[in-house]
Amino acid sequence: MSSNICSMTATQIVAQISSGKLTAEAVMADHLIRIEARDSVVKSFIDFDPDRSMTLARAADRRPKKGILHGVPFAVKDIIDTVDLPTSWGSLIYKGFQAPRNASCVEMLSRAGAIPMGKTVTTEFAYFSPGPTRNPHNLAHTPGGSSSGSAAAVADGMAVLGLGSQTAASLTRPAAYCGVFGYKASQGSIDLQGVMGLSASMDSLGLLARSVDDLILARAALCGTNLPSELPFRSYPQNIAFLKGPHWHEASQQMQDSILEAGEMLASVGVKLTDLECPTEFTQLSECHKIVMAFEVARARQFEFHNHPEKLSGAFYNLIETGLATSRRDYEAALAERDFAEKVLAGLFLAYDAIMTPAAPSSAPAGIEATGDPLFSRLWTLMRVPTVTIPFGSDDANLPFAFQLVGGFGADQNLLTLSRDIANHLQTHCEIPEL
Amino acid sequence: MSSNICSMTATQIVAQISSGKLTAEAVMADHLIRIEARDSVVKSFIDFDPDRSMTLARAADRRPKKGILHGVPFAVKDIIDTVDLPTSWGSLIYKGFQAPRNASCVEMLSRAGAIPMGKTVTTEFAYFSPGPTRNPHNLAHTPGGSSSGSAAAVADGMAVLGLGSQTAASLTRPAAYCGVFGYKASQGSIDLQGVMGLSASMDSLGLLARSVDDLILARAALCGTNLPSELPFRSYPQNIAFLKGPHWHEASQQMQDSILEAGEMLASVGVKLTDLECPTEFTQLSECHKIVMAFEVARARQFEFHNHPEKLSGAFYNLIETGLATSRRDYEAALAERDFAEKVLAGLFLAYDAIMTPAAPSSAPAGIEATGDPLFSRLWTLMRVPTVTIPFGSDDANLPFAFQLVGGFGADQNLLTLSRDIANHLQTHCEIPEL
Repeated sequence: MSSNICSMTATQIVAQISSGKLTAEAVMADHLIRIEARDSVVKSFIDFDPDRSMTLARAADRRPKKGILHGVPFAVKDIIDTVDLPTSWGSLIYKGFQAPRNASCVEMLSRAGAIPMGKTVTTEFAYFSPGPTRNPHNLAHTPGGSSSGSAAAVADGMAVLGLGSQTAASLTRPAAYCGVFGYKASQGSIDLQGVMGLSASMDSLGLLARSVDDLILARAALCGTNLPSELPFRSYPQNIAFLKGPHWHEASQQMQDSILEAGEMLASVGVKLTDLECPTEFTQLSECHKIVMAFEVARARQFEFHNHPEKLSGAFYNLIETGLATSRRDYEAALAERDFAEKVLAGLFLAYDAIMTPAAPSSAPAGIEATGDPLFSRLWTLMRVPTVTIPFGSDDANLPFAFQLVGGFGADQNLLTLSRDIANHLQTHCEIPEL
Repeated sequence: MSSNICSMTATQIVAQISSGKLTAEAVMADHLIRIEARDSVVKSFIDFDPDRSMTLARAADRRPKKGILHGVPFAVKDIIDTVDLPTSWGSLIYKGFQAPRNASCVEMLSRAGAIPMGKTVTTEFAYFSPGPTRNPHNLAHTPGGSSSGSAAAVADGMAVLGLGSQTAASLTRPAAYCGVFGYKASQGSIDLQGVMGLSASMDSLGLLARSVDDLILARAALCGTNLPSELPFRSYPQNIAFLKGPHWHEASQQMQDSILEAGEMLASVGVKLTDLECPTEFTQLSECHKIVMAFEVARARQFEFHNHPEKLSGAFYNLIETGLATSRRDYEAALAERDFAEKVLAGLFLAYDAIMTPAAPSSAPAGIEATGDPLFSRLWTLMRVPTVTIPFGSDDANLPFAFQLVGGFGADQNLLTLSRDIANHLQTHCEIPEL
């Protein structure tokens, strides 16, 4: 029974609780058993209290009104404030810091009935220096970062949903490496109160789940609506641009083969796929992203840089120094290049409903000393558009492959609906590892 | 001597300290005397420790390296985090809350040598419900809000610079009512880490000062450059569009006369002023602003709304309810209207260097139960452009008039340089009240 519940999606759990076949307490109990069995090796949670989680689950069962995520346990990336668990931003400086409130995203999911079960490992300040989390599908490999713990917890069946964020590739990459669905919202479209700021032009909230329906449900809760159908929606043909993009040749042969195979499979069921040359306006965007990120991080982390340099990793300290050495002129030039590229991209979405493109250069690399390369996401994050990461197949080491679908700015709901159909065509099922 | 130092600008203080004629200690001491004499009636500071301020000033005198704001006391609006003074957002919920860090803006000014001397009164969550602050020029009148305390402290000579913010008219209006210069930055151009978020599309940092040179100096510090000359700059003709705007007839006769008189005075010294019809795209922007603000505030303040409703004012509670009742469709339509208006506005800045337009409907209204009407700023804040408020003259009750200059998005430095010349042409001097 245990693994049954833990492999359920949020959509299934909500239906079972609604029909009286399950209780929030039973759902939480099984997830706690799973965590007990697995998290000593996966190490996705950093702050976690089983008694507190059970108390919240029992309280949910006593509430008459059922929200759209009633009884669904979710994991919270540790750069997101929670009123009853510490928030330390993956940094020694803030170890044990207790925020006086819930971030809006935590509060919104909770108001929809979901249960925040614990804080998950992030890299230091959501940048590169990794935490102890391992990839649930192969413990010798990284889960990716910075939303490492949320992705691993969802992939392993220790949480049903995970809150994450992305400034470079912090959601897409761990989703791809861990073989779960990842949704990065249009920048600014979901409130970030109580979420650590890293690079304000690009910081975006995101979700990890084992089905696209779960992403749709959780997004509706985050938007403050009760039903996804209340969100703007238009019907669409499945007219997708296949874009190898400026970094295709830096992807592994296996990753290239995987996305090409996914493309063929989609074409075989009638999805219209058009090969798209990479617009020249996109070729320098990864470099622009680095400039914008360094410049903004250097300003956002002034306090820590000056007052606690000894508690910063070398990589993060160097990023701030790079940002301080970047002129405002170069920063604004990078933003101007983004502005222009965004217009070109918006033009593409007049002809296509989504862009299909790699999510990561390879499956999860070996080792947990690094979290992999953000290369395939920097440009999309810079352009602020929504993305959905879709797992597809895996390699000999049992590590998932994935690609991403990119949508027009603000068209998150359309992109998610389309992604659901694409995932169905590909018969992507996120299986949690056997115990 | 006392009032001499307290009436000095930051630029003057830095020069005097640099040449050895003054010390940071002497500057702080005189400001403390001023506060002792005046703040029991003006009530601009909410958290303030004279011993701490003197300790920081003496430490500044011991440091060999002089920053561009060395020894300048500044006031910090109480929605901005400080590591050694509480930050309560003007809310009973957070009374006494101690943040674990300085906001980036506080850290940046401090690194430039300025001294954070205390926290100043804000309205509740930087919205409408006022604190106890009074207008230094006439204690029976409001100082405006939400940057009430910072504006009053600078106007009264209790602080040389004030940190503020604006989401509707929270910087422009108190600057105008208190007769000081106010600068609202291009939205997103200055880091907001550690500044309470209210409405993320519009929240902007700002500064209050008694000279435009001080604004230029402090902005350079906030941008993380050492000298204003490092910022992008182009030469300009003084080619200004005079825009009565969509709400002109809601301004008092005296306010209308004041800005018309300023315009005539500028024309008489050779500034080219062109009367501009209000673009039709601007007429509904104030309503769009209200929609965007309510929608975003409702999401940003989810925690407080659900967990501490009894500690929210009726006005703020109602704002959240309005925002929750606003559909995402209406919200996105308002943003789309803004996007279009921004393009129209950008077109105007191909022909004009700045727009001259009213800053407030009248001089500061009587009473401190309300902070006045944000009407003349909503549209500019929505369009994210920089503004500089320039005092000009006063009424029979000794209350200042003002207008604002609006610049192109990102062209903050040009706007400030132009504003300095305009203020010189008008011979605007911010006199602090006699003791």
